[in-house]
Amino acid sequence: MPHSIAFIGLGIMGRPMALNLVKAGLKVTVYNRDRAKTDPLEQAGARVAESPADAVSDAEIIWTIVSDTAAMEAVVTGPGGIIERVREGAVLIDSSTISPVVSRKLACHLAGKGAKMLDAPVTGSKHGAEKGELTFMIGGDRDVFERMLPVLSVQGKKHIYCGAHGSGLAAKLAQNAIQSAMVEVFCEGFVLATKSGVPPETMLEIIQSSMARAALTDFKAPFIFKGDFTPYFPLKLMHKDLELAMEAAYAQNVPMPTTAAVKETYGAAKAQGKGELDYAAVVTFLEELAGVKVRATDQGKGLGG
Amino acid sequence: MPHSIAFIGLGIMGRPMALNLVKAGLKVTVYNRDRAKTDPLEQAGARVAESPADAVSDAEIIWTIVSDTAAMEAVVTGPGGIIERVREGAVLIDSSTISPVVSRKLACHLAGKGAKMLDAPVTGSKHGAEKGELTFMIGGDRDVFERMLPVLSVQGKKHIYCGAHGSGLAAKLAQNAIQSAMVEVFCEGFVLATKSGVPPETMLEIIQSSMARAALTDFKAPFIFKGDFTPYFPLKLMHKDLELAMEAAYAQNVPMPTTAAVKETYGAAKAQGKGELDYAAVVTFLEELAGVKVRATDQGKGLGG
Amino acid sequence: MPHSIAFIGLGIMGRPMALNLVKAGLKVTVYNRDRAKTDPLEQAGARVAESPADAVSDAEIIWTIVSDTAAMEAVVTGPGGIIERVREGAVLIDSSTISPVVSRKLACHLAGKGAKMLDAPVTGSKHGAEKGELTFMIGGDRDVFERMLPVLSVQGKKHIYCGAHGSGLAAKLAQNAIQSAMVEVFCEGFVLATKSGVPPETMLEIIQSSMARAALTDFKAPFIFKGDFTPYFPLKLMHKDLELAMEAAYAQNVPMPTTAAVKETYGAAKAQGKGELDYAAVVTFLEELAGVKVRATDQGKGLGG
Amino acid sequence: MPHSIAFIGLGIMGRPMALNLVKAGLKVTVYNRDRAKTDPLEQAGARVAESPADAVSDAEIIWTIVSDTAAMEAVVTGPGGIIERVREGAVLIDSSTISPVVSRKLACHLAGKGAKMLDAPVTGSKHGAEKGELTFMIGGDRDVFERMLPVLSVQGKKHIYCGAHGSGLAAKLAQNAIQSAMVEVFCEGFVLATKSGVPPETMLEIIQSSMARAALTDFKAPFIFKGDFTPYFPLKLMHKDLELAMEAAYAQNVPMPTTAAVKETYGAAKAQGKGELDYAAVVTFLEELAGVKVRATDQGKGLGG
Repeated sequence: MPHSIAFIGLGIMGRPMALNLVKAGLKVTVYNRDRAKTDPLEQAGARVAESPADAVSDAEIIWTIVSDTAAMEAVVTGPGGIIERVREGAVLIDSSTISPVVSRKLACHLAGKGAKMLDAPVTGSKHGAEKGELTFMIGGDRDVFERMLPVLSVQGKKHIYCGAHGSGLAAKLAQNAIQSAMVEVFCEGFVLATKSGVPPETMLEIIQSSMARAALTDFKAPFIFKGDFTPYFPLKLMHKDLELAMEAAYAQNVPMPTTAAVKETYGAAKAQGKGELDYAAVVTFLEELAGVKVRATDQGKGLGG
Repeated sequence: MPHSIAFIGLGIMGRPMALNLVKAGLKVTVYNRDRAKTDPLEQAGARVAESPADAVSDAEIIWTIVSDTAAMEAVVTGPGGIIERVREGAVLIDSSTISPVVSRKLACHLAGKGAKMLDAPVTGSKHGAEKGELTFMIGGDRDVFERMLPVLSVQGKKHIYCGAHGSGLAAKLAQNAIQSAMVEVFCEGFVLATKSGVPPETMLEIIQSSMARAALTDFKAPFIFKGDFTPYFPLKLMHKDLELAMEAAYAQNVPMPTTAAVKETYGAAKAQGKGELDYAAVVTFLEELAGVKVRATDQGKGLGG
Repeated sequence: MPHSIAFIGLGIMGRPMALNLVKAGLKVTVYNRDRAKTDPLEQAGARVAESPADAVSDAEIIWTIVSDTAAMEAVVTGPGGIIERVREGAVLIDSSTISPVVSRKLACHLAGKGAKMLDAPVTGSKHGAEKGELTFMIGGDRDVFERMLPVLSVQGKKHIYCGAHGSGLAAKLAQNAIQSAMVEVFCEGFVLATKSGVPPETMLEIIQSSMARAALTDFKAPFIFKGDFTPYFPLKLMHKDLELAMEAAYAQNVPMPTTAAVKETYGAAKAQGKGELDYAAVVTFLEELAGVKVRATDQGKGLGG
Repeated sequence: MPHSIAFIGLGIMGRPMALNLVKAGLKVTVYNRDRAKTDPLEQAGARVAESPADAVSDAEIIWTIVSDTAAMEAVVTGPGGIIERVREGAVLIDSSTISPVVSRKLACHLAGKGAKMLDAPVTGSKHGAEKGELTFMIGGDRDVFERMLPVLSVQGKKHIYCGAHGSGLAAKLAQNAIQSAMVEVFCEGFVLATKSGVPPETMLEIIQSSMARAALTDFKAPFIFKGDFTPYFPLKLMHKDLELAMEAAYAQNVPMPTTAAVKETYGAAKAQGKGELDYAAVVTFLEELAGVKVRATDQGKGLGG
């Protein structure tokens, strides 16, 4: 186990992850753009740094989880960035979901200072982060990955090695592209069925009797039927991940005609002000167009038409 | 149980369904455009009719399962069609997957003769038909549906009543739209992942660790990884059902932007000559564009790139 | 010049076309579902028939222009339809915009009676019809086309022979697919430009300085900039033609990924209640999503943002 | 007229543009990553710099035209970049077609050094550059734009001021999105028509008789009919501009469903190895799918089918 670790980015996921490292007995230095969020970590025993550069100056491991590609570029190569003071031999584990292209560029910058980088995006909720039950998809050198396993294990039991740098991000983006499309086409199908007079519960029974049944849509359906879009994963973040998936597809020369259509549909819903709702709220964009609601009733009948 | 039933359409699904009715002790008259296919039924004890009109002249129940909308129109309203000799009070159960708009029109024609119609499309394979284990989605008058339950039960245990005439078809088309899209986006995601250096088995492990796991893609993945596209459900039929879904969406004023993109992708694969393969062969269209194959290797590594 | 002609369908285009034939000295019999619309023709000297069959019983030429595929099927093969009394050797000129597949089927039915059919869809407005300045795209036997030229010339000077039966319709649908897409992408580009702070007039100047300039968008732009969507060609009819284009593409095994997206966008606008407006109103669907209006101001500045 | 100007990027467009400035009597310093390309400029009297920083150290005006967003970032903020030695009060005119978001970021960096930036992407060919007949779309402070007019006038007569920084790029990207879509839907329509038996020349006559006629498609059609795809503007660059347009749309929260489909179609053609051909070669992707060629014949008949 390394003695010193820097943790940068104390958002919804980052805070519990940093706390897990403190609790695991590591010497943790934290940095966050908004200082207010560092208090709980300071109370737990972490040192609070003034800048990313300050945070990493004697860190063997650096863990980052920030909001987007621009934020990650700023943290690494901006003024006061990691690159200014990173130690030779240090390893940066980045759990942000960002552009694989930019991630590879940052890995090159770090290599110039003798440091290594893993892309290690994560799936799972705040709850999973608190419990140390996250799943990581990891790209980078395999030996670096293996060396980092002890510290990765603090956050969760599932660490899937995907390949060279950027492949962890690619896997995460492919996963979210598939997931967002499953919800979107489920919604299109249910709007068509409802407007055609099929009660949503009946349509769900049909799906559940078929091979198309999935835990994801079993979970979302009752929320859709109630019109409850309390965010598990906000629509605007799903749209962001779709944008990143399309950028990755552009870079890899992979046409993704359906994912492109999915992205524009979430984009339309976001443009209508639904970005903070759960991404299943894409159904309301389709419902408003079709003039029908995919809602269950006491009588087990749709309100369609 | 009625004494006399006419069965029209002895294709892959129709033949075992007609045999089930003979075995159940019903008095069955069959008709098929291609006479050769009637032999097994004649041997089993069915009467072979010269035309749909001949078949239905003393039938209390008429069961049809033909290849497409035009064939069903010909069977009902063409020369020698059902409409010429259908008995007052007869019920037509149509298990063809056809346009809901045309199906409603045919129901009107039959109503003019005092006959009733149920749309009763079916999911399940030839194997399911042989075993009498099919699932039916049924539209039409609820009391007619209930009266037909004894004879429907000969073919399977699952009969889902969807609502007014046409809603069984709408449900079937919504189901196939969802299912075809799930496979298509699964393939897009896997092509992106593979080209990005993520081995297909690793990507599958990620999906299977997530809520996006579905029996459908668990079933298709090994075939995709082997490049084995022996048809369970031919791509050209999935494309046909997507065309019908889009027609139904047009008729119902329901925009389906993602389903439209899915349809064109299957259409492109069909145009390339993949129509007779399983619909999962849509992956090969994407693979050929991207210059990569989603194939497993002994070493558990993708052959991507 | 033939002595007797039946004209069926007295809508916005049909009425002036039928009048042109009367004025040209032909013996015209008219039929329209709604009898009220036949009065002006009766006053002009036409005989009014009780049914399509009645109208065609001694016609050498039959001209039809009805609202959609189902109406044309009813007129030809429905009860009291043309097929019942059409004369051997008669020629049916159909100027309806309908499914090429169904049109070919109707041509077969007529051939069974010894009659010929041309598909002859038309572009041009009510105004063009009144002046006899329409353009026809014509499919069918070339010799029949040539024999019909004298009577076609009553309606306009431009008659473009496209090929075998159905090719006139295919040409018309390809034309409208291209035209609707040009307007849709013009609108997408202008919404992006406006939201990015480029005044619409400036963006128009850029387009007009480039090879992308087209009479179509030069004509539509001022209406878009004023938000004036008085219908020249209603959005719902453009959406209908896109649906027909996609059906033709399905039948011909031609993937049309962009046209599919265009169709869903017009479909979304129609589903929002914009169907009776000019098809350029598709811009308002995009504007509402983006929260910006592509409107000119006195100051030559956009109101974007 | 300023005394000293730095010119960075001596590609197909940059070389003649830099020469225009030398010929106009300005004191020009050039920089290009590949030194070989600087020879003609050196012979014409320009000084050759060792780095962007070296080039700009005493320049009042800096003109850049590089291949993509990453190249522009490197030129401005990379090692030896402009930012290191740019003079206070200098103006950077960037004629690269790059991400508007990144362009705004670079303008901020320059503002920190007291320098100004205009985004000034260009339309027109190498030929237009040689003749000083380019069209510029310009974003940035209006007074800076007006001050730069004398030097801009060296390259062409048309300088369209679009608004705040980034709006020149937004206008250029909207323009190319519209243009690429016009060609793509023209091709889809012609493939449908050809496969339906309409000769391409006939279809062209129809388009040219309609308001959909455009100089762009009048120009491309003969090349398409011959299958001659000598690049005027390479398909891969059009695809790049579509990617930038979609990124700009994401940043501006503007859904562009049709442009998204257009982009994937060019992307599919590029993935098939057509990137170096003219972008009208997108037709060959559609032709190969449909199994038909949009080619003219001596007999004025299509070779379709």
